[in-house]
Amino acid sequence: MSSTWGNKIKISIFGGSHTQAIGVVIDGLPAGEAIDMDEILCQMARRAPGKDKSSTPRKESDTPNILSGLLDGVLTGAPLAAVIENTNTRSRDYSELKIHPRPGHSDYPASVRYQGANDIRGGGHFSGRLTACIVFAGAVCRQILRRRGVVIGGHVLSVGEVQDAPFDPVEVTSQELESLSGRYFPVRTAGTENAMREVIEEARLSLDSVGGVVECVVTGMPAGIGSPMFGGVENVLASILYGIPAVKGVEFGDGFGVAKLRGSENNDAFYYDESGAVKTRTNHAGGILGGITTGMPIVFRVAVKPTPSIAREQETVDLRTGETAKLRVQGRHDPCIVPRAVPVVESAAAIALLDMM
Amino acid sequence: MSSTWGNKIKISIFGGSHTQAIGVVIDGLPAGEAIDMDEILCQMARRAPGKDKSSTPRKESDTPNILSGLLDGVLTGAPLAAVIENTNTRSRDYSELKIHPRPGHSDYPASVRYQGANDIRGGGHFSGRLTACIVFAGAVCRQILRRRGVVIGGHVLSVGEVQDAPFDPVEVTSQELESLSGRYFPVRTAGTENAMREVIEEARLSLDSVGGVVECVVTGMPAGIGSPMFGGVENVLASILYGIPAVKGVEFGDGFGVAKLRGSENNDAFYYDESGAVKTRTNHAGGILGGITTGMPIVFRVAVKPTPSIAREQETVDLRTGETAKLRVQGRHDPCIVPRAVPVVESAAAIALLDMM
Amino acid sequence: MSSTWGNKIKISIFGGSHTQAIGVVIDGLPAGEAIDMDEILCQMARRAPGKDKSSTPRKESDTPNILSGLLDGVLTGAPLAAVIENTNTRSRDYSELKIHPRPGHSDYPASVRYQGANDIRGGGHFSGRLTACIVFAGAVCRQILRRRGVVIGGHVLSVGEVQDAPFDPVEVTSQELESLSGRYFPVRTAGTENAMREVIEEARLSLDSVGGVVECVVTGMPAGIGSPMFGGVENVLASILYGIPAVKGVEFGDGFGVAKLRGSENNDAFYYDESGAVKTRTNHAGGILGGITTGMPIVFRVAVKPTPSIAREQETVDLRTGETAKLRVQGRHDPCIVPRAVPVVESAAAIALLDMM
Amino acid sequence: MSSTWGNKIKISIFGGSHTQAIGVVIDGLPAGEAIDMDEILCQMARRAPGKDKSSTPRKESDTPNILSGLLDGVLTGAPLAAVIENTNTRSRDYSELKIHPRPGHSDYPASVRYQGANDIRGGGHFSGRLTACIVFAGAVCRQILRRRGVVIGGHVLSVGEVQDAPFDPVEVTSQELESLSGRYFPVRTAGTENAMREVIEEARLSLDSVGGVVECVVTGMPAGIGSPMFGGVENVLASILYGIPAVKGVEFGDGFGVAKLRGSENNDAFYYDESGAVKTRTNHAGGILGGITTGMPIVFRVAVKPTPSIAREQETVDLRTGETAKLRVQGRHDPCIVPRAVPVVESAAAIALLDMM
Repeated sequence: MSSTWGNKIKISIFGGSHTQAIGVVIDGLPAGEAIDMDEILCQMARRAPGKDKSSTPRKESDTPNILSGLLDGVLTGAPLAAVIENTNTRSRDYSELKIHPRPGHSDYPASVRYQGANDIRGGGHFSGRLTACIVFAGAVCRQILRRRGVVIGGHVLSVGEVQDAPFDPVEVTSQELESLSGRYFPVRTAGTENAMREVIEEARLSLDSVGGVVECVVTGMPAGIGSPMFGGVENVLASILYGIPAVKGVEFGDGFGVAKLRGSENNDAFYYDESGAVKTRTNHAGGILGGITTGMPIVFRVAVKPTPSIAREQETVDLRTGETAKLRVQGRHDPCIVPRAVPVVESAAAIALLDMM
Repeated sequence: MSSTWGNKIKISIFGGSHTQAIGVVIDGLPAGEAIDMDEILCQMARRAPGKDKSSTPRKESDTPNILSGLLDGVLTGAPLAAVIENTNTRSRDYSELKIHPRPGHSDYPASVRYQGANDIRGGGHFSGRLTACIVFAGAVCRQILRRRGVVIGGHVLSVGEVQDAPFDPVEVTSQELESLSGRYFPVRTAGTENAMREVIEEARLSLDSVGGVVECVVTGMPAGIGSPMFGGVENVLASILYGIPAVKGVEFGDGFGVAKLRGSENNDAFYYDESGAVKTRTNHAGGILGGITTGMPIVFRVAVKPTPSIAREQETVDLRTGETAKLRVQGRHDPCIVPRAVPVVESAAAIALLDMM
Repeated sequence: MSSTWGNKIKISIFGGSHTQAIGVVIDGLPAGEAIDMDEILCQMARRAPGKDKSSTPRKESDTPNILSGLLDGVLTGAPLAAVIENTNTRSRDYSELKIHPRPGHSDYPASVRYQGANDIRGGGHFSGRLTACIVFAGAVCRQILRRRGVVIGGHVLSVGEVQDAPFDPVEVTSQELESLSGRYFPVRTAGTENAMREVIEEARLSLDSVGGVVECVVTGMPAGIGSPMFGGVENVLASILYGIPAVKGVEFGDGFGVAKLRGSENNDAFYYDESGAVKTRTNHAGGILGGITTGMPIVFRVAVKPTPSIAREQETVDLRTGETAKLRVQGRHDPCIVPRAVPVVESAAAIALLDMM
Repeated sequence: MSSTWGNKIKISIFGGSHTQAIGVVIDGLPAGEAIDMDEILCQMARRAPGKDKSSTPRKESDTPNILSGLLDGVLTGAPLAAVIENTNTRSRDYSELKIHPRPGHSDYPASVRYQGANDIRGGGHFSGRLTACIVFAGAVCRQILRRRGVVIGGHVLSVGEVQDAPFDPVEVTSQELESLSGRYFPVRTAGTENAMREVIEEARLSLDSVGGVVECVVTGMPAGIGSPMFGGVENVLASILYGIPAVKGVEFGDGFGVAKLRGSENNDAFYYDESGAVKTRTNHAGGILGGITTGMPIVFRVAVKPTPSIAREQETVDLRTGETAKLRVQGRHDPCIVPRAVPVVESAAAIALLDMM
């Protein structure tokens, strides 16, 4: 289960921050679909670090090398395999992390889980760098989905206390989603990006980091996709979204907001639109009832915790001596990963939705 | 995938509100474990409706008949199968629901998904009654877990605007969890139950319903359980929790609260406790880092939407005529299912955790 | 994995020889398919024991009680659950089997696997009686397959040294298969049944049993079903066929016979038939190349071992004293299960093929 | 399902004969196990072609490049990924194969399955070259198994009509298996190899090919591994073995030979050996009863068809014109792949057995 996901579309992700390469194998893609490599690179660039002060100054070469599954730009139906070399693998001494686990990181539970044999360099297989594989796979899947009329897009809903305007869950259009999904720091309202960047810069200057929320919408999903109980759209999406490091919450439609609603407020009334399609006047359900799509936009939000790597001194343990210790995490880290998480969230959703269709 | 869940422990749930019976098959349970039938019945009674005005006056006979897998009170290692008869299957005319889908229910998307062949009586396979099967399976799993030191307990964190005090994610004890888990309406602070009951009664009297949040904690989980990426504790728990009807959000630790935190606030400092075990001073992570347990209590919350069945007149469509219609949902319904959801959430967690151990 | 099988169609089988009931849950069946109950009973009758001296005189009531998934004779798309009561569960003392494991049976390895907690009465979950569940599930699946033009039929290819004429892998028709599949002791050539019955009777009179081979053919499978590597038709069929107790070999097309062929003999030449369809002039491949159907009949054979339960005295161990012991297996047993295995093999194939389509 | 296999150990294989590379990702390997790279290369060399006239003169560079999962020669617990470059990918024109499918190959059914988009160069994803990935994965797994006392070895049981002496299913030792498993053309009796080579050379000179049988044994498997029904050792082994191209039959213990046996001959009597372990005096069961290991050697045989690529003229169809056509398969092909299949069969078994332990 660990690094393999899916039913009809199966992805298998490998690699770590400092291994020779990271990569992904995608089994079950439909044969005959043309894949635009530029579009893949464009999505991967959105995730790549080093663009400005809001992310880590570390440069990563994120160019995927496709080893198999694509012939003359068309999917062959055989597994699609892509590898991304790790150029920056000159490991400084990471052995300290085996002794002094970083708070908020997997170092300590992973050392228990793997009895100390795990690769701890740069976080190893737990590194956020692995999300490049999710973006690659998702960039392939979203091209196939778009041809079927399904469009996915997200924005930074919040960073710290700064909020962007949420999507209108009824009126949102594929055009709006497409216009957002080319951007590095997608927000819906003017000024919000600057306000969020200020919060991020303030965190960076204080050797700290800050969390936020990604909101994502899918338009064009036909009604009737998904299954009851454990095969519901929510189950399937959540099972992949929690595979993105730093995600601590996933909610659909009004999400935790439903707790304060009355049934008469939360129920979405059905009606026929002018084209004769069944729609709902509101969309508190986020396009999903009983695990199955209603035909309305799918709406979900993902909570992203503040980067645990901060330069401030923190308290930890010395696993060798059995005593408390002080740790100052070295290296170049993101003061906020929320903008970079947007394409990852969209990509994970693309994989999951193609798997269900 | 639909109604089957799990890896080492595989559950397969069947039945609908008005079929002859509902039931569950559980494959992969460890042989040789004694199972206390009274404890199972006690958990199932917590979920059963009809206890007071806060739930539906409908009486359901929830006595599971174990067909196989148990011999002289001990698990044989073969699949454990239990069946619960539906005594109340005298179907009044449900055909109207095929024509007038109920807002907030799966009627419409299910009719698309199954091209009209689905059993719509009482919600069919989407009925909340199916959660009796989850509680049965969970009641078995939690007995096995408790023998390994793992205890699960939850409470009603909120109903509408009324809040109970959340668990202390560091200090919470198995004793506190055990004391809550015998109760029908478990809350942590005096007076909260009455305040919540008032909100529920008010909703009932106004022919409405109200939502809420269930908070659940697991103590005694050893560090090192779970896997990176898609095999994380969060992924696995979410994939089963979203199988509970009406759940629209799942969060771990501080959940959506992390979005407003700085890394220096959210990171949990490690230290050695007096027994020499590694602990964290705070537990914003909810006992999970990198998908793997830290040894601290696991904390999660589940958002439960207000029951969609309300007696008020609602707008819907007439799938036969293609016109808008009015609907008044008949029958006896829960004004609030949050208290009854607590044992279901605990049970789903028990299944998932035993699957991962 | 144990008692659960499948991807799109998932079956979960439970029960043992002496539990209250046995049964099966089938998830993923297509909604809207009419199911003919008489046809199911007809298939189950072919498997049921007690018809004549070639099988055990033990009578079993094999009437499945459908608990859910079927409404007015039509599949609802929700899991189909059927239960068969064990009327004959008055257990004589089986405790001896825990001490003296029967040669050729699972008693010993199961006692190790389940540390002695397994239900050994009548073989428990390993009992051949569980194949009634496979026949039930297969009888449903073959009705759906037939509607898509796919017909499955088998015959007793051999009992001991007596051989029936094998199917012509090119000329075999669905009519021939249908005519065989209504019969309890299906053979293709006159006289073979009597010769086989003589061998069986001889084995019975000498307190012994005898093995044989079942040959099975599927017509009407379109070309292009199945997948390379581990998703091949052979992999999928074998993975379910070996779930039938007593099966020790599975082969496709010429099977082990290919070992003695030259490539020029074994390759099947392609041609266009008068309807313009691609066919092969011979069918050594058994309708499968590279794991994928060619459109020719699928041909496979299954080796069935002689019933291990024989009345003769046998050598075993006494697991209590640690010494060698003598055992005489009590009860009424089949001198040959090959005829009763035919519908089971056909049914397993039906489940697997529907799963792949 | 297609190119992904396994439960606890999950392998995902990618690539084709003429893609940039082939490779495998192995998820779920135990952390902390030292892996000897030389031993992997030794196993891969057994499979590699070009050694002598019995196989294709084509040279393949089979050196795996490990991208992740191994640190300082020790498994980290994260997915192990290995890539083998295809140096010989200068594709001559393979487009003819899309028009003239080769008899005995997957060309035709794959073109239906993938609607013509599949990569047909050198057989694409169906190429025997992919077995290099199975051998790599198996070479890792068998090192882990050997440390737990489990040894796997095979031999060429037959080529055409020439038979080697089968293993003694009771007396076979790990020493015998180890001595065989270093060899390219492993046989048990002197003279057999030469006789087999003569048959192969004769086939080669007549522009033909020849099939055979591989027999494989596993010693040291403890009793109690495997599960009833679909989780049996036979099911699991068969489901992976049929993933080896050209395999048309799999049998366990006496296999198809059981059909001619009486129960009194086929049952294996239990006894205690001098060490106090339960053994069987014979081993017709091939070490498996009820799907579960008995502690005796596991014995199975695999039928391998003659290489379908032969230089003789063959009849096929022209998928463009819809007429019958003549085809002469170009290239350098194996007159017999049975010796090269031995390490592949052993490797597939190693993966499956580690998955079940």
